[in-house]
Amino acid sequence: MKKLINHPDDVVRESLEGFAAAHADLVRVTMSPATIVRVDAPVTGKVGILSGGGSGHEPLHGGFVGLGMLDAACPGAIFTSPTPDQMLEATRAVNGGAGVLYIIKNYTGDLMNFEMASDLARDEGIAVESVIIDDDVAVNDSLYTAGRRGVGLTVLAEKITGAAAEQRRSLPQVAALCRQVNAQGRSMGMALTSCTVPHVGHPMFELPDDEMEIGIGIHGEPGRRRVKLQPADAVAEMLMEPVMSDLGLKPGDDVLLFVNGMGGTPLTELYIVYRKAAEIAAKNGLKVTRSLVGPYITSLEMAGCSITLLKLTDDLTALWDAPVRTVGMRWGI
Amino acid sequence: MKKLINHPDDVVRESLEGFAAAHADLVRVTMSPATIVRVDAPVTGKVGILSGGGSGHEPLHGGFVGLGMLDAACPGAIFTSPTPDQMLEATRAVNGGAGVLYIIKNYTGDLMNFEMASDLARDEGIAVESVIIDDDVAVNDSLYTAGRRGVGLTVLAEKITGAAAEQRRSLPQVAALCRQVNAQGRSMGMALTSCTVPHVGHPMFELPDDEMEIGIGIHGEPGRRRVKLQPADAVAEMLMEPVMSDLGLKPGDDVLLFVNGMGGTPLTELYIVYRKAAEIAAKNGLKVTRSLVGPYITSLEMAGCSITLLKLTDDLTALWDAPVRTVGMRWGI
Repeated sequence: MKKLINHPDDVVRESLEGFAAAHADLVRVTMSPATIVRVDAPVTGKVGILSGGGSGHEPLHGGFVGLGMLDAACPGAIFTSPTPDQMLEATRAVNGGAGVLYIIKNYTGDLMNFEMASDLARDEGIAVESVIIDDDVAVNDSLYTAGRRGVGLTVLAEKITGAAAEQRRSLPQVAALCRQVNAQGRSMGMALTSCTVPHVGHPMFELPDDEMEIGIGIHGEPGRRRVKLQPADAVAEMLMEPVMSDLGLKPGDDVLLFVNGMGGTPLTELYIVYRKAAEIAAKNGLKVTRSLVGPYITSLEMAGCSITLLKLTDDLTALWDAPVRTVGMRWGI
Repeated sequence: MKKLINHPDDVVRESLEGFAAAHADLVRVTMSPATIVRVDAPVTGKVGILSGGGSGHEPLHGGFVGLGMLDAACPGAIFTSPTPDQMLEATRAVNGGAGVLYIIKNYTGDLMNFEMASDLARDEGIAVESVIIDDDVAVNDSLYTAGRRGVGLTVLAEKITGAAAEQRRSLPQVAALCRQVNAQGRSMGMALTSCTVPHVGHPMFELPDDEMEIGIGIHGEPGRRRVKLQPADAVAEMLMEPVMSDLGLKPGDDVLLFVNGMGGTPLTELYIVYRKAAEIAAKNGLKVTRSLVGPYITSLEMAGCSITLLKLTDDLTALWDAPVRTVGMRWGI
């Protein structure tokens, strides 16, 4: 295992300490329990947006804490759900009196712990709503989920609901918006290589030199099928087709096209995939009016990519364009 | 070779086409010769800032084209200098009447071609100045250079001179500023793994499973020494010590600390390195007043990192903080 770490047990703590030291202008970090909170939280009268999940997907979620996006993130151990006490602590820290929205990627452990946290928060008189993101069309019921997995769309949901919260939309409104994003977006990913969890010390799975995994999960969970290596254009087709058909898009629809890197794939290659994905979208009559390309929700050092399409409305587009100031996404401010 | 590409010959062109499609709001891309130009270039009365080099280091340089940073970038083939005709075309495109600054990483091919381009541009009556970045303390004279290599400091030089050009500083002033940045900054890198140039098809060098290369170049050029794998804290010390001693920093100095990812190393690990580097800086009495962490100048999918320190002045700090709107770096706007 070749990694820039000290002891595997210290990876998340030491990484958080580095993150805190580098970004004290944007976030406050607590270590026990581990939370990353927007530096000026709680913002009075604003819905607090909270997410979290296992570490190893950076910049998600901690890199998206700040004005216009998340109010707090709860980092678990690598590929492991955060605990209810982390979530409760973060909920208290971001409650500005207008309630708190939990954005939960659909994994069994995350769901269970966020549900416990929301019970505890409600006991303290904090209004909480939860929205589950389950955008991955690759598989139903997987290793860690009942139903579809939550993947790339989470990034877009965090950006869009974060902008709505800045406009002082109410908790029911922000929750409904998040459900709308989840209904209008789909994703699918693939991997060229595996990834290694530090305390495991060996790759999550074995992938022969001449094969790739189509429909991979962000924890290296199996996808739809293993196939022989194929050119980037064929990969783009294999991901775009299921995403488009599941979404039921119509010619003339505006879409946001998001090509995400899994961690180990250079930007050069992501743009080659984007090129073909945009061409396929155009061929199907879709108008790609917004785009995002880069490693935003990763699987440690895995090589591969995912494609997310989000059907846009004028409201969603304006919220996407709204100012954001986080480590991983920043514009307009 | 596992890469998301089509034919190796098409990598740079197809990637550029994808980049152009995704970022038409920020850049204009020409294909023959290949240039990436700020969408509103030329800006009348502003010094044009131009850089370029081999592809494979993304987001450098094309990702840094836009308001407050580069006016244009010339992408060569992978790890290969761009040609004088690319540079001349880009020079014409960004000449707003106040002249053009070339920021050149110190590699023999880049120097030669930028020199030819500046001769051609001057023949057309365009004022051109060149500044060479040679910040890598790892080696003197390397595989591709006479003298030190130009590496991570290039990112900081492009940001700072770009901001100065926005303020309408003159060509001699912006060139002097760029030389100041080069004098006040140093870098050193390391690799855990090699990288593979698509048309070569095999790794640039072999690195055994239990070894790492200290002082690596951004093209996989040999560094100072091969050593057994060591913890991230020891790596941070091996990079910080030569950088600090070469710079001759004094206790109380303000510095920008930049921990750069080589491409294949997750953010989690970069923050572990940042944590220790910041601690070492503090122990030496340095004040880390600005920071940057992430993959900004990469070597394809190489795993590893580099550390850059830049001694700050009030002027440099203000220019660093100034608004920037590019694909790879964006704030304040």
